[in-house]
Amino acid sequence: MEKLKVELGENSYNIFIGENLFDDVAKFVMDSDFSKKILVVTDENIFKIHGNNLREIFSRYEDINFEIEVIPPGETSKIFYEVENLYTCAIESNLDRKSVVIALGGGVVGDLAGFVAATFLRGVNFIQVPTTLLAQVDSSVGGKTAINHRLGKNLIGAFYQPKAVFIDVTTLKTLPEREIKAGLGEVVKYGVICDTNFFNYLEKNIEGILGGNVEVLKHIIKRSCEIKAAVVSRDEKESGLRKILNFGHTIAHAIEEETGYTRYSHGEAVAIGMIGAASISQALGYVDAEKVDRLKNLIENFGMYTHCKYCNVEGVYNALFRDKKVIGGKLNWVLMKDFGKVEIYDNVPEKIIKEALTKIIC
Amino acid sequence: MEKLKVELGENSYNIFIGENLFDDVAKFVMDSDFSKKILVVTDENIFKIHGNNLREIFSRYEDINFEIEVIPPGETSKIFYEVENLYTCAIESNLDRKSVVIALGGGVVGDLAGFVAATFLRGVNFIQVPTTLLAQVDSSVGGKTAINHRLGKNLIGAFYQPKAVFIDVTTLKTLPEREIKAGLGEVVKYGVICDTNFFNYLEKNIEGILGGNVEVLKHIIKRSCEIKAAVVSRDEKESGLRKILNFGHTIAHAIEEETGYTRYSHGEAVAIGMIGAASISQALGYVDAEKVDRLKNLIENFGMYTHCKYCNVEGVYNALFRDKKVIGGKLNWVLMKDFGKVEIYDNVPEKIIKEALTKIIC
Repeated sequence: MEKLKVELGENSYNIFIGENLFDDVAKFVMDSDFSKKILVVTDENIFKIHGNNLREIFSRYEDINFEIEVIPPGETSKIFYEVENLYTCAIESNLDRKSVVIALGGGVVGDLAGFVAATFLRGVNFIQVPTTLLAQVDSSVGGKTAINHRLGKNLIGAFYQPKAVFIDVTTLKTLPEREIKAGLGEVVKYGVICDTNFFNYLEKNIEGILGGNVEVLKHIIKRSCEIKAAVVSRDEKESGLRKILNFGHTIAHAIEEETGYTRYSHGEAVAIGMIGAASISQALGYVDAEKVDRLKNLIENFGMYTHCKYCNVEGVYNALFRDKKVIGGKLNWVLMKDFGKVEIYDNVPEKIIKEALTKIIC
Repeated sequence: MEKLKVELGENSYNIFIGENLFDDVAKFVMDSDFSKKILVVTDENIFKIHGNNLREIFSRYEDINFEIEVIPPGETSKIFYEVENLYTCAIESNLDRKSVVIALGGGVVGDLAGFVAATFLRGVNFIQVPTTLLAQVDSSVGGKTAINHRLGKNLIGAFYQPKAVFIDVTTLKTLPEREIKAGLGEVVKYGVICDTNFFNYLEKNIEGILGGNVEVLKHIIKRSCEIKAAVVSRDEKESGLRKILNFGHTIAHAIEEETGYTRYSHGEAVAIGMIGAASISQALGYVDAEKVDRLKNLIENFGMYTHCKYCNVEGVYNALFRDKKVIGGKLNWVLMKDFGKVEIYDNVPEKIIKEALTKIIC
């Protein structure tokens, strides 16, 4: 089991990466000063695969009060109704201020359970056990929690750091291929924004990654978490540097909104959005065509989409300005200067944005 | 206008105390780096008295987007339904991450608007303009926000610090006498827990306080805020010292619950609860009868209840253990050692608690 510290002063915590970590989760909880009232939040799919195993492991300890609450899978569970249900469940399970909420699942479970942990009794202990590649390399690290409002995605939430993150790569074995690909968009992003060697590593290990080689997966997860942790450590609340993590996301959010959040997973939209952002960088003379092509080829070689359908340039362009990161009507663009180097710009001309969108929308 | 700093590192903020401060609120917002999209939350009663005045003052500035959202008065508004309404209102008013939510009202408005500010877009700027004595000396200072769950009061919330608190003592002029008294319980508490001179001052200025003497009111508000700010600065998240602010509250919460939150205001219950806690202190030999009597006399001279009806000893005793501060079944008692000095105990025998309850329940 490898350990990686996220430095956030009194909110610091460790990310543990390894195989078959449920025993370690239980030990961590029992060795902590948490009260032994534990609420696990998971979804129906994950419960079927891992629910009984986790319950069995915790049942070896005495004097614990262990509840598993199962939510329906998918983004539609990130709503007030489920939040209220979880509060009720927490109250009925007699959770106290020293209790722990454990999120076992993908990004939806983590976002929802994290929001509940952040706001129940003004904050109880929280542990993330992400089970999708996307959650392991992105959403479980950094302390963002969120739920959706009927007028927009992730509009409600809190910055709330977990006490630990346990990344168990064996949980990836049961993941459908599309779910693995959904996480690779963010992995490629870390290479582009911070680490040219990591980008090279990805180009050379496509087979190992898609084939589920455990050592390769552990490496890409660890390096992704290291990069995200380093960025988050320097800017917990997204006032500056953390914005670079949005490379590809400006366009991605607009594509997701315009296609009703059903056609493309977040990771797929990010992959397309990165190509769009790279095209803007090229149009402004920041990178040459060869680098844009390398990015595009890597995405293609991972079997991910490089273009999107079901939307049009005008619609996506207008949707860009409805993002919650827009302040005073200004868009912040994270643009590529080289592999491992990005910068933020807020004055990209409409014409250049639309030309870039034309290249990725077919 | 007096200024008092609450020291909380990067979350530090100022409390401004004075008369007719609405102009200063507007100037503060316009001079800050907030975006000029402003959402004011208030209740129907306060809106009738101050709504147009505040709107008129802000309307002198150009390029602002100013919305007032009015909620029904009273504790029953601290619910999810109102939270969702306020989110919708915030979205429809195009609030962005640099926007500000202003709470204009008593504790209910502050708790609700504060929770919305803490969780909308993972946190926007927040300003408190408390208009009741209780909110001015207690709930607006310290960063606690909360809403109720149908199974319990204040079970959901967040620690979230405002960017500033503006305490306008002129707003107290329109307050019914019972509302003034509701704030005095907390004021007396500050004397007991931290400052014997302040307790003496209260004993000597009963007439000035009940008569609404502005200079006297400003003094007691300022001293109360100073004490609360000093405690909160040293323990923002209530892990230790901050517990002393709960003097009288252990019993108060149980009385409120047992009487359905309708018979006694929070401040009235705190006054009775302080007498109960002082009786326990006396029974354990920590203070003599004379000091308990001085506390009781001051409360009586302020025209507040010293006993409660509509509940019984057994019921209140059992309710003590349902408080959200109970961890592992243990009650933390804040007990008086002298005026200006309290300590925390968790092992008060049942018999002594029940004897103390017998003295305050009739």
